[in-house]
Amino acid sequence: MASLTGPVELLLTLDPRSERRLHEQIEQALRDAIREGRLHAGARLPSSRALASELGISRGVVTTAYDQLVAEGYLETRQGAPVRVAGGLRAQPTAPPPPSLIAQFSYDFSPGLPDLAGFPRDRWLRSLRSAWRETPLDAIGYTDPRGVPELRNALGDYLARVCGAAADPEHLLIATGFRQCFSLVCRWLAAHGIEQIALEDPGWHAQRLIAEEAGLTVSPIPVDGEGIDVVALAQSGAEAVVVTPAHQFPTGAVLSAARRAALIEWAERGDRLIVEDDYDSELCAGRVGALQAKAIEDGGSEITGQLALADFIARGELERHLRRMRVRYRERHAALVAGLAVEFPDWRAVPTIGGLHTLVRLPAGTDEPGLLAAAARASVGIEGLSLHSYTATASPGLVFGHAHLAPPAITQGLRRLSTAFANR
Amino acid sequence: MASLTGPVELLLTLDPRSERRLHEQIEQALRDAIREGRLHAGARLPSSRALASELGISRGVVTTAYDQLVAEGYLETRQGAPVRVAGGLRAQPTAPPPPSLIAQFSYDFSPGLPDLAGFPRDRWLRSLRSAWRETPLDAIGYTDPRGVPELRNALGDYLARVCGAAADPEHLLIATGFRQCFSLVCRWLAAHGIEQIALEDPGWHAQRLIAEEAGLTVSPIPVDGEGIDVVALAQSGAEAVVVTPAHQFPTGAVLSAARRAALIEWAERGDRLIVEDDYDSELCAGRVGALQAKAIEDGGSEITGQLALADFIARGELERHLRRMRVRYRERHAALVAGLAVEFPDWRAVPTIGGLHTLVRLPAGTDEPGLLAAAARASVGIEGLSLHSYTATASPGLVFGHAHLAPPAITQGLRRLSTAFANR
Repeated sequence: MASLTGPVELLLTLDPRSERRLHEQIEQALRDAIREGRLHAGARLPSSRALASELGISRGVVTTAYDQLVAEGYLETRQGAPVRVAGGLRAQPTAPPPPSLIAQFSYDFSPGLPDLAGFPRDRWLRSLRSAWRETPLDAIGYTDPRGVPELRNALGDYLARVCGAAADPEHLLIATGFRQCFSLVCRWLAAHGIEQIALEDPGWHAQRLIAEEAGLTVSPIPVDGEGIDVVALAQSGAEAVVVTPAHQFPTGAVLSAARRAALIEWAERGDRLIVEDDYDSELCAGRVGALQAKAIEDGGSEITGQLALADFIARGELERHLRRMRVRYRERHAALVAGLAVEFPDWRAVPTIGGLHTLVRLPAGTDEPGLLAAAARASVGIEGLSLHSYTATASPGLVFGHAHLAPPAITQGLRRLSTAFANR
Repeated sequence: MASLTGPVELLLTLDPRSERRLHEQIEQALRDAIREGRLHAGARLPSSRALASELGISRGVVTTAYDQLVAEGYLETRQGAPVRVAGGLRAQPTAPPPPSLIAQFSYDFSPGLPDLAGFPRDRWLRSLRSAWRETPLDAIGYTDPRGVPELRNALGDYLARVCGAAADPEHLLIATGFRQCFSLVCRWLAAHGIEQIALEDPGWHAQRLIAEEAGLTVSPIPVDGEGIDVVALAQSGAEAVVVTPAHQFPTGAVLSAARRAALIEWAERGDRLIVEDDYDSELCAGRVGALQAKAIEDGGSEITGQLALADFIARGELERHLRRMRVRYRERHAALVAGLAVEFPDWRAVPTIGGLHTLVRLPAGTDEPGLLAAAARASVGIEGLSLHSYTATASPGLVFGHAHLAPPAITQGLRRLSTAFANR
């Protein structure tokens, strides 16, 4: 460590074995000192010659660092005058992060989160590295708004193998998630004179927000143990419908074979559109018109992430990950069902095939808002069925997400919930 | 290499020194063989015991590989029956990539592309790695739709230092680019009863597409050597305007001090909105209403990319990169101006301060579409001024992007263009 005397007292430590180059180390030290308020606006810095001599390094290293910090606005320089700390900079004494708009709970049963801890970060980084290192430069600029061909090919192949879907890569459009994709589809429908879209009731409330944002009128269609009621759908007069056939959200129902056939017949009879929200994998197919909107709106999704995903699929990592997760989710679902039986013996969890969440229906007349408020006071996050229903008062219930919680957290969270409900 | 006899002839090479584990090597070899059509649907594979014995490895390795490929849909297995290649798989004999919707040229002067080759990929990868390794798990899920606090803080600090803008991180919204941000602003304006938006004429044509997609009426406002005509803007009756004051697209004009003052007075007088498209850095500030639409539409931008960008800014890499690019772009702009003087001595390039593109105005009556067609036939990409104008016939011109082209490519491209124009 070299102690410096000069216009201001600087204490700089240079580590010659560091991965960072010397000028970067000087920059970082000065940046931190200014940000944290140790160096004030207007403070005069040693000349590059003096600082280089004190530190025993070449003067060019110091001028490189000073030039960078001038470009960043931390330092000011004028012909013939010494380098000074720039005026008008706010010190940031380790400012607390701005409050989030998302609530934080000790135990959060909110549905929709997968097990993030189980994501194979190192394998994903390997795919990212390969995408960044091996991508030809022209692939990083504005490209085909449908998405890069590598990913559309990998997905076409994947859908053919795993879902039995004949998905021509020519007709695939990569979006940033179901939300953006569905928003594009809704705006395309509205632009083509379609005014009404049918949604499952109960169903994921964000679907309704997106459809209404696009100017569509929503027709809620009842869901029972076999999935969406296709007779009611036909009577609604809607020309498009959104379904979650594999594992209905939030009831967990699987669309029966008879209903599937009726749904397809409904669509073919009137050239109507079925949007399938396969929310386990966030894949969704739109029509060509959605592409035009996508191209206008954001010029296509981020390229290297797409190439990394193509690599991740081609190396089998996606399916390896999904296999691991299926086992884990089954265990967590079992822990939730067992915990519910212990803490709430009178409740009845709607049977499902697993998935990411479980619905508990409560007796008619149960004060659902009161339960949710008591849960929040005990720092337990959970969603009510009414959030996802068009007929809020008819059937109270609670939707438990279990996929992101380890079994002990599930057990403890349910115990805390039970106490909170008993004491309210 | 071990040659296998059995139900099908397999040739597998296992490399014990590879980074890949043995079961991954088996998976990859079988996957490739099936994809390339060397193993056909229905083909019977050796038993796991037989294959393990042939390869001199443990049976568990083979069953792990088989299980993975069954999960991926490449193989089928039934109780007591041998493992077979799944039916219904299309062989993909190194399929040509699907054709892109974006044209490819030998020399592409299309404006809007930065110098991608100059992007510091390794330094960006360092920031990405740090974001993936150091991110707490709860930051990867659905978070604040405004963007992660780390990036909003880094950007607030950056804007204060470099642009002198007082940008409270609380009021920043991270979008995927100007397109998405402007689309959100337009839809928010439309939802609040504003029907008309003013755009620069000539101006980037995508702005018009986005505004019209949102249902707004566009008022074109003339641009001269001082930037947008604020008197004409006030007369248009528009309540919002988009400007590119630092380097107008495509004329290159810098908004004069007098016009800046008049523009701000116009906005303050009527509580009107100025959208600044600072297209060098893709930053833009919307109002709170845009946030709500963003949250509905895609639930927030990708998290780790945001964290990586925060790290990239905090380490000074963004500004280091921009400094390098400014030098490079000045050189390329000089090469373009010099090449134009040689190949087209009669043309007059509109003087600019550099930037990413240069406008050449052509004499009234010049057949701009004819020139563009001749350029395309010679595989030279270039945009006409009419694409970005509301009064197409009045002022023909060509917009040359030079930022992504090395000086020799600029010189050669201009020579080819000159030949193509002479021979048409």
